[in-house]
Amino acid sequence: MGLDIIDIEDAASRLRPFAVETPLFEWPILNEKIGARVLAKAEIFQRTGSFKFRGAYNSISRLDRDACPGGVIACSSGNHAQGVAEAARLLGIKALIVMPKDAPRLKIERTRASAQIVFYDRETEDRNAIALDLCEQRKAAFVPPFDSPQVISGQGTAGLELARQAEAKGAELDAVLVPTSGGGLLAGVTIAVRDRFPAAEIYSVEPEGFDDYRRSLASGTPQKNARLSGSICDALLIGEPGALTFSLNRHRVAGGLAVSDADVRLAMAYGFRELKLVLEPGGAVALAALLSGAFAAKGRTVAIILSGGNVDPSLFSGIISSDV
Amino acid sequence: MGLDIIDIEDAASRLRPFAVETPLFEWPILNEKIGARVLAKAEIFQRTGSFKFRGAYNSISRLDRDACPGGVIACSSGNHAQGVAEAARLLGIKALIVMPKDAPRLKIERTRASAQIVFYDRETEDRNAIALDLCEQRKAAFVPPFDSPQVISGQGTAGLELARQAEAKGAELDAVLVPTSGGGLLAGVTIAVRDRFPAAEIYSVEPEGFDDYRRSLASGTPQKNARLSGSICDALLIGEPGALTFSLNRHRVAGGLAVSDADVRLAMAYGFRELKLVLEPGGAVALAALLSGAFAAKGRTVAIILSGGNVDPSLFSGIISSDV
Repeated sequence: MGLDIIDIEDAASRLRPFAVETPLFEWPILNEKIGARVLAKAEIFQRTGSFKFRGAYNSISRLDRDACPGGVIACSSGNHAQGVAEAARLLGIKALIVMPKDAPRLKIERTRASAQIVFYDRETEDRNAIALDLCEQRKAAFVPPFDSPQVISGQGTAGLELARQAEAKGAELDAVLVPTSGGGLLAGVTIAVRDRFPAAEIYSVEPEGFDDYRRSLASGTPQKNARLSGSICDALLIGEPGALTFSLNRHRVAGGLAVSDADVRLAMAYGFRELKLVLEPGGAVALAALLSGAFAAKGRTVAIILSGGNVDPSLFSGIISSDV
Repeated sequence: MGLDIIDIEDAASRLRPFAVETPLFEWPILNEKIGARVLAKAEIFQRTGSFKFRGAYNSISRLDRDACPGGVIACSSGNHAQGVAEAARLLGIKALIVMPKDAPRLKIERTRASAQIVFYDRETEDRNAIALDLCEQRKAAFVPPFDSPQVISGQGTAGLELARQAEAKGAELDAVLVPTSGGGLLAGVTIAVRDRFPAAEIYSVEPEGFDDYRRSLASGTPQKNARLSGSICDALLIGEPGALTFSLNRHRVAGGLAVSDADVRLAMAYGFRELKLVLEPGGAVALAALLSGAFAAKGRTVAIILSGGNVDPSLFSGIISSDV
């Protein structure tokens, strides 16, 4: 597969005028608690509140506009939707998003601000079929959420920044924990980080019950999840690894981790109380893996990606208020 | 008065191994909304969740320990308390804090983790008298919250970083908005920022009804507030400017701004929804001054200080949930 560091560097040049270079945080209090050096790449501060803008902009900016007079169409529970809508807005292109009916209200509102929305049912309808039909009707281009070289290269720019920022802090990365759904961020970050830190072990982190990537990496063949809904991590409920992402990740990624919704709630509450960050459930899974002990970090230098911060006020309030 | 940039640079060397160099943020969405270039110094990411650690550590690390076998004592509604407790912990010194009974629960809990607490009533008791009595009884050293050269120099290190980070971003600062209570942060930041940007206008920002600094700057003589409680900005309810801070600020600071509690609530909700930050009321006043239009920023380059993020979950939940 021809996707390598050059593609990610190329995406980085394209993104430079528009994407935020998000900070790589290090908190004394978290280091003390974990007994490790923890570096946190805060993609919640990316345009639209998640890393998804990176892949969306890299993809849409390369489209042949004459071939898609109807604009762009994407399927997403919310973060890819916002990324696509914002990239399309910046590029002056129309966007239509196919969203699950149960997507968080905040994500729906934020998407609606600059795109048209068509809803579907996660359990009974095939979002890709709906999107591809619409693409044909409207002569629009489909922007895949993860399984495309342009999307993976775009997401990889977060890893490129992470590696450079870690180096600037004099850190030698032992491991990187990446929130994972279809595996696009995982693939891009793995290529970018291991280019600079070849010995770094990269791990996927998923919600329990939706750990298709963990099981696929362990068995060597793609595994599916039994369910498509039922975790608070709305951003991480894709049913199986992407074909392209899995081919890139299966020999490069060290393994997979899974965390419970309870672990995620505690991580979000810790983020509020001690780190002063607004994390959405899916964006908090790597932090949850550290705090819960699902990943044994002691004595090591570990980077985590805080991948998104788009959470409904009601859910966030319930989580921070129940924490004592 | 002999306090100048050398003192702040000296404090910066002393703080370097312990304080966090907090990020200077710039968000496309906020720039677009305000129609200005906005840079935000996020002191919520400082050790203990506010800038107060800087002045506390700079002060306590310079004490002659033989002269204070009973440790250190401070008065604070919470952020100075936590800063003093944490600095004392790092230096292996005992700390006792005189706190108002109505301090936020989170601040009380976080202070109690590493210090002893004595409570007082904001409206009827004199916290300084209580603290000075205790200092005499225990042979302890008093750490003033703002009116001391060491505290001002320590807080000024936030301004030193801000100026250097702004320069690295190629920004020429037109104005800086500083959350203000006793005026220590204001004094330190003013000296540090104007050393690098002599034309920058510095403004204090206070809650309406507690705008003693604004009125004092306007009249040229120290003015008192009529009340000592009654705003959600618990960190900014000091009754009058410090004598030392006012002498430093009166000819250097351009003027004062005041914002309502309603403006502050909207700024905190905006911080949650769009910026993914946890801001406490007092920490959000400079952002509130921009969003409410209290400060006319259009077309200018303006830095704001987000001074603290220690807010009770119940208050935060109420504020983010009522925002639509």
